[in-house]
Amino acid sequence: MYEVSRARVGSSWLLLAVLSVLTVLSACGGSAVEQPAAEGEAPGRAETMAAGGAQPLPSWVDGATKQAIVAFVARVTDPASPDFVPQAERIAVFDNDGTLWSERPAYFQLLFAIDRIEATAAEHPEWEDQQPFKAVLEGDMEALAAAGEHGLLELVMASHAGMTTVEFEEVVREWISTARHPELDRPYPELVFRPMLEVLEYLRFNGFKTFIVSGGGIEFMRPWAEEVYGIPPEQVVGSSIKVEYQVRDGEPVLVRLPEIDFIDDKEGKPVGIHKFIGRRPIAAFGNSDGDFQMLEWTTAGSGPRFGMIVHHDDAKREWAYDRKSSIGKLHRGLDEAAKRGWVVVSMKRDWKFIFPFEGI
Amino acid sequence: MYEVSRARVGSSWLLLAVLSVLTVLSACGGSAVEQPAAEGEAPGRAETMAAGGAQPLPSWVDGATKQAIVAFVARVTDPASPDFVPQAERIAVFDNDGTLWSERPAYFQLLFAIDRIEATAAEHPEWEDQQPFKAVLEGDMEALAAAGEHGLLELVMASHAGMTTVEFEEVVREWISTARHPELDRPYPELVFRPMLEVLEYLRFNGFKTFIVSGGGIEFMRPWAEEVYGIPPEQVVGSSIKVEYQVRDGEPVLVRLPEIDFIDDKEGKPVGIHKFIGRRPIAAFGNSDGDFQMLEWTTAGSGPRFGMIVHHDDAKREWAYDRKSSIGKLHRGLDEAAKRGWVVVSMKRDWKFIFPFEGI
Repeated sequence: MYEVSRARVGSSWLLLAVLSVLTVLSACGGSAVEQPAAEGEAPGRAETMAAGGAQPLPSWVDGATKQAIVAFVARVTDPASPDFVPQAERIAVFDNDGTLWSERPAYFQLLFAIDRIEATAAEHPEWEDQQPFKAVLEGDMEALAAAGEHGLLELVMASHAGMTTVEFEEVVREWISTARHPELDRPYPELVFRPMLEVLEYLRFNGFKTFIVSGGGIEFMRPWAEEVYGIPPEQVVGSSIKVEYQVRDGEPVLVRLPEIDFIDDKEGKPVGIHKFIGRRPIAAFGNSDGDFQMLEWTTAGSGPRFGMIVHHDDAKREWAYDRKSSIGKLHRGLDEAAKRGWVVVSMKRDWKFIFPFEGI
Repeated sequence: MYEVSRARVGSSWLLLAVLSVLTVLSACGGSAVEQPAAEGEAPGRAETMAAGGAQPLPSWVDGATKQAIVAFVARVTDPASPDFVPQAERIAVFDNDGTLWSERPAYFQLLFAIDRIEATAAEHPEWEDQQPFKAVLEGDMEALAAAGEHGLLELVMASHAGMTTVEFEEVVREWISTARHPELDRPYPELVFRPMLEVLEYLRFNGFKTFIVSGGGIEFMRPWAEEVYGIPPEQVVGSSIKVEYQVRDGEPVLVRLPEIDFIDDKEGKPVGIHKFIGRRPIAAFGNSDGDFQMLEWTTAGSGPRFGMIVHHDDAKREWAYDRKSSIGKLHRGLDEAAKRGWVVVSMKRDWKFIFPFEGI
């Protein structure tokens, strides 16, 4: 078993190289990550946990960015403020990939899909002669690249559909608790951004309801979002495939179909917010142009509004990419943030720590 | 204005007659409502409000039905119980039409659609010569019947689409606060079931999160569900039409399109629950076979489960209908409730009061 497992890791690596170079990353987009180095004093766990209280956001450098968050929260929660917002309307939405956790060298959900193709190959002997599966299993870069976007979609459907929702949830739970990031060699839930966990906690402490609004798969996130982010399944919005209700031997099941239901990205994000939440958020947090319309919709509402973009500019502690990246591309957002009053976070400048394991 | 308004009421009545006889009600389905008569002692408002506390469900007759609700809640909330359910998993779902409020002589949303056609006819001179609008405006029963289901869909699309989501919300708010039920001559929010308001409150008091899961339009319910039921927009699931994100003169809007997005009825209810809530409820409340799969899905889960069907058997205080009704048809549910362990509420036997205004 161990050797099989190693072999899988090996072919994953080859595949990642393909995806990184040919499909996912542009020529100029990514820079290699280095093992993070703790900078400055590390707050203890208790202090981090108290992030909502008197000393909020301990992983944030004291400066204009942190002050912007704190000032907004003060404005909308002070009953004496003309900008006071009733608790029920304090809705905050967060993109996931690149905003709450990393998204390199590829969206983690794509790494999950590849792991699943490898893990289930024995049940699909036909994949041996069928692209793009053959390419995944053989680590054949050229063949995979030739399969293009359509091939990627096939990978996703094959790994995400054709089972019940209960079965899929189990698969995701197993993966999230055992899989490790190919470069950082850490479980994926450790690759969340500590300063953003503090923002989530700080907002909830101040009566906000926090939602994820992600281009990623809704059922890929729900099984672990509560434990990792404190966000329950019913507050996770994302892309989805269709499901069908069936009764099998008297037992009802929901079967996942290989058919796109909803893409929660770009113009889809305000649509998803409207569909699932049914009211306009007063705060939105994103990192890429895929979040542009979500921030636009949120901050165009009347009354106090808050928009924030996480700028990946720290090649040393995480990854640095923006205008020319094909993953997490941030171009229009950088150009228009100032005039729209959106706050741009410099991960390098504004965050004392990036990951939860730093300095602990 | 007054006369115009009266004329509208007049043609609504004609139309209702058509819909009731030809489209919505079957020959045997409905019996006329009589003005409700208070039976027994009326609890005061304070007592009603205290429904979650020591004396829960005051509008329910002490008996097996009420005891079933109380016993279930005790089982899942007592930390010493083997059936204890953590608070985050205490999800309860409620159908709306016929379960939380009346649905006669037609679904209230259809009455809304008809009111809207009449109210906006001046902006649509083409409707004068176009079916089924001409039929609505002229109260022409035969022509409307001839338009059939397709005609009804056209009425709904014409009254629900072609505007922004903000505009539609405003229209619904205005209607719900001014329109009156054609037979009972009361505002629609008064036609909610007092015993069910108490159940909602009782469950929330015991740590449940309450959701609406309705075949009705999600955006028709959200503007008033919080005030009337204490259920916030993000906990309302329903049928929907598609919306499109547009930026008009720099201002983002969501435009309602005349295209069905999702039908949250029958097999659609478990699908909607899965899509919007993302976990299986432990309690489900419905009244018709449109809720069958929702109850089936809910009660097939492991651990303690609760399913309840409101049976409209009180022709004196509300309406009596079940197996042969085309609105709120309840046939399979009645046949299978006992073997599935679902509780059937007899409105006549189990409810001291039906509407909030009784006995107050």
